[in-house]
Amino acid sequence: MNYNTMCPKYEVAIEIIGKKWTGLIIRVLLGGAKRFKEIKKQIPDMSDRMLTERMKELEAAGIVIRHVYPETPVRIEYELTQKGTALRNVITAIQQWSEEWVD
Amino acid sequence: MNYNTMCPKYEVAIEIIGKKWTGLIIRVLLGGAKRFKEIKKQIPDMSDRMLTERMKELEAAGIVIRHVYPETPVRIEYELTQKGTALRNVITAIQQWSEEWVD
Repeated sequence: MNYNTMCPKYEVAIEIIGKKWTGLIIRVLLGGAKRFKEIKKQIPDMSDRMLTERMKELEAAGIVIRHVYPETPVRIEYELTQKGTALRNVITAIQQWSEEWVD
Repeated sequence: MNYNTMCPKYEVAIEIIGKKWTGLIIRVLLGGAKRFKEIKKQIPDMSDRMLTERMKELEAAGIVIRHVYPETPVRIEYELTQKGTALRNVITAIQQWSEEWVD
């Protein structure tokens, strides 16, 4: 791998996963499909508005898919796509580094 | 690994490596110690002011060390510490994901 040549794809990836809360949201969804409130519960410091915004971005980026189940009341769940699930290695690498190096 | 439990260390790591340009700066420095101008050359869209700011943050986080060589003119180089070099796995994982999934 040549670190001296900048790769635009890398920049796009960093732009997606580097946004505040996004890494945490993906980490929560790696545990399986979740409802909005379940995600919120894991990340209490994040506002509803912020989570809504991030989920829209992640849907647009093809990382999350939104399932609507026509029950009463309607049930909506968010799930990682294959592209989103493939972020597991990234999330794991960050996790391992932080456990070793962050005080 | 339990994705349902939020880890403060992970948040700190994301906070460091998720900032705009930081991933790219680390990627450049994985290629070896570099002078300010050499880093700039690899990331032409980043302003001098931004690079200065990021390098100070990375020094403060213990990821980069600044070497001053008392030559004439003085030579200053930036190098990854052990903590910084350990980010290779993170950077590589992001690189691989982006090559596979970003159009």
